[in-house]
Amino acid sequence: MGYVKGLRCKECGKNYEKLPVHVCEYCFGPLEVDYDYEGISKVISRKSIQDGPPSMWRYQPLLPIDGEPQVGRYTGFTPLIEAKNLAKALGLKKVYVKNDSVNHPTFSFKDRVVSVAVTKAKEFGFDTVSCASTGNLANSVSAHAAEAGLKSCIFIPVGLEQGKVLCTQVYGTQLISVRGSYDDVNRLCSEIAGSHQWAFVNINIRAYYGDGSKSYGYEIAEQLGWRTPDNVVVPVAGSSLITKIWKAFHEFKDLGLIDKVNTKVFAAQATGCSPVSTAIKNGWDTHKPVKPDTIAKSIAIGNPADGFYGIKTVRDSGGWGEDVTDEEVIEGMKLLGETEGVFTETAGGVTVAVTKKLVEQGRIKPDELTVVCVTGNGLKTLEALDNKFAEPAVIEPNIHSFEEVYSNGITV
Amino acid sequence: MGYVKGLRCKECGKNYEKLPVHVCEYCFGPLEVDYDYEGISKVISRKSIQDGPPSMWRYQPLLPIDGEPQVGRYTGFTPLIEAKNLAKALGLKKVYVKNDSVNHPTFSFKDRVVSVAVTKAKEFGFDTVSCASTGNLANSVSAHAAEAGLKSCIFIPVGLEQGKVLCTQVYGTQLISVRGSYDDVNRLCSEIAGSHQWAFVNINIRAYYGDGSKSYGYEIAEQLGWRTPDNVVVPVAGSSLITKIWKAFHEFKDLGLIDKVNTKVFAAQATGCSPVSTAIKNGWDTHKPVKPDTIAKSIAIGNPADGFYGIKTVRDSGGWGEDVTDEEVIEGMKLLGETEGVFTETAGGVTVAVTKKLVEQGRIKPDELTVVCVTGNGLKTLEALDNKFAEPAVIEPNIHSFEEVYSNGITV
Repeated sequence: MGYVKGLRCKECGKNYEKLPVHVCEYCFGPLEVDYDYEGISKVISRKSIQDGPPSMWRYQPLLPIDGEPQVGRYTGFTPLIEAKNLAKALGLKKVYVKNDSVNHPTFSFKDRVVSVAVTKAKEFGFDTVSCASTGNLANSVSAHAAEAGLKSCIFIPVGLEQGKVLCTQVYGTQLISVRGSYDDVNRLCSEIAGSHQWAFVNINIRAYYGDGSKSYGYEIAEQLGWRTPDNVVVPVAGSSLITKIWKAFHEFKDLGLIDKVNTKVFAAQATGCSPVSTAIKNGWDTHKPVKPDTIAKSIAIGNPADGFYGIKTVRDSGGWGEDVTDEEVIEGMKLLGETEGVFTETAGGVTVAVTKKLVEQGRIKPDELTVVCVTGNGLKTLEALDNKFAEPAVIEPNIHSFEEVYSNGITV
Repeated sequence: MGYVKGLRCKECGKNYEKLPVHVCEYCFGPLEVDYDYEGISKVISRKSIQDGPPSMWRYQPLLPIDGEPQVGRYTGFTPLIEAKNLAKALGLKKVYVKNDSVNHPTFSFKDRVVSVAVTKAKEFGFDTVSCASTGNLANSVSAHAAEAGLKSCIFIPVGLEQGKVLCTQVYGTQLISVRGSYDDVNRLCSEIAGSHQWAFVNINIRAYYGDGSKSYGYEIAEQLGWRTPDNVVVPVAGSSLITKIWKAFHEFKDLGLIDKVNTKVFAAQATGCSPVSTAIKNGWDTHKPVKPDTIAKSIAIGNPADGFYGIKTVRDSGGWGEDVTDEEVIEGMKLLGETEGVFTETAGGVTVAVTKKLVEQGRIKPDELTVVCVTGNGLKTLEALDNKFAEPAVIEPNIHSFEEVYSNGITV
């Protein structure tokens, strides 16, 4: 019935029971899941994984649920694309794109964490799920709540992209728009969590929720043929994903599923919200909160909950942090589209553009194998591309009209 | 090296070589692929398929390419969701949703046909691919051309949804907007195909292209545990998909992969463009062209190329054709979102709403197993949902503001 022994404080090591709690009552450190790795090692192998379903649940013993998944049965195991055209454009030999823009059901990596969180919410007996979100999480919580037959109440900052708002409402949630930044919304939710007995996926369920992201790292290692890349470039918002990829790689090594972890982890941010990359560049142990101002709204978290751990992960791995302007974000989105036929949201533009910058800086070397993380879908951030392309040529429905524009030099 | 012997006229049976041709020069019938089924039967089995990749290429011997796929390596094998909540809402026991809204790379079933078509374009040595499209095909051709390193020139009717336009441009194509309906655009492309040596995926490559859709049918049968459903509800645009699902089921039976085909096939259209369902209801052998007027733009084809064959398929199977109003389309989109957490485009709203109508008519029975085809992504047709939801409650970032709206009855 699962391999979770309990929770444990990441700082002081105090143990807690399997409950919807997330902060150590002694030192205020974050709680993390304490797994029975000895038990897991008896049931997991490359073969057991390969014989599993083509979803994140092929790694079920390493995910913090006690029974079968209640939702998200088809989430994960998204393509790891060998991006030959992008590699050429970047002057690299081997580039892979881990493409969660087609993740099931709501087209971002958030479906991984929410599949776990909503399953836990059901296991704990909650009747309502909730979250603070920059958009993708809102989509995913709303969809999974619908699938689970739970109520949901979702908090977003005002001014989100239309795609992210409609793709939350269509699943029938109660959506609340807060006049403030994501960080304001998050603080508000922490308060509400004190007075309403709801499963806030990224607050009281956070310890379990976060570990859903490990599946993204497991998949990279498995899909590369049971090894980790030389470099992985990860978008940083709350800074959880970057730590979980690192954790996933090391769990695989400790379980003997891969030989070694020799990966440099790179944090990618938009310059308009770059607390983590700024801290890394300045050699700080932790980040200073910032007020976000970027088109990359899905990663516009000025005070990342796991900022300290994200910075530590990057440093421990020998990686680096970089950030790019909004113009570079758009160029990154276009570059990925034009070279690989993959349409990512602004956050994916960030990772592609940061990868380019890291290559130019010599931090990523031509002979190395690099994985670029694409965690969301371009259809959700259409606003970012407004007026970024020439209007299509408009013709009459006859061949003369076409031949006229063609001979006048539409370039095909 | 593939199992395509050549092409054959669907009407008079005349044989043709494997070339980019699509019309019989004797009787003007459409050409279809002539497979070496004896050869295929020697290499294909349930096991060979299950051991294949989690993509449409697990059925490669049954797809009309000669070498390895050149693009779309990750296309297909999308989830077949057991939709328990939707079933309950419809008063049925077993409903499955075949969900191509997460298809790779451009989030519709068109990636299946285009993966084949662009591979064929490369095999034939074309340097440019082209198509007439209502949107989804444009997205897919543009993306696959980028991946293949081919040029592309894509024709759409004016007035398409913003998501479909941007999701074509981002891949770096030459996009041409034609003042007219899809049918006008299609006629124009047939003319251009006479004077430009391009691979028009749905004209001169059509015989090969169309067979990519068979994978959608193979997957339904495999994912149901090697059997076909009692009913399948299919959106009808050009009327090709519905015939290919039927063909796929019968190929599986003829190869001994399934025991029997006892499936009623239902054609789903929007009332504002319903030539096929109208013909079926009236007992006509073929459709009368109509001028489309519906929000379901992706299936707004007034003169479907395979209308005759679609009608025949429905009739041969003992199925029926139905159509629904634009209001019902929106209700269908909402119902699927609220019950299953799946966000489909307008065409998916059509199939859900038509399914509901067929249940009410008694044509689909409660004890039967029904598959509802969802072939595209709701993020591409956001315009259809404009003003269809109440605005989110807006609050200040403090708990008093929340408790005020909460106590005033936001319903969670």
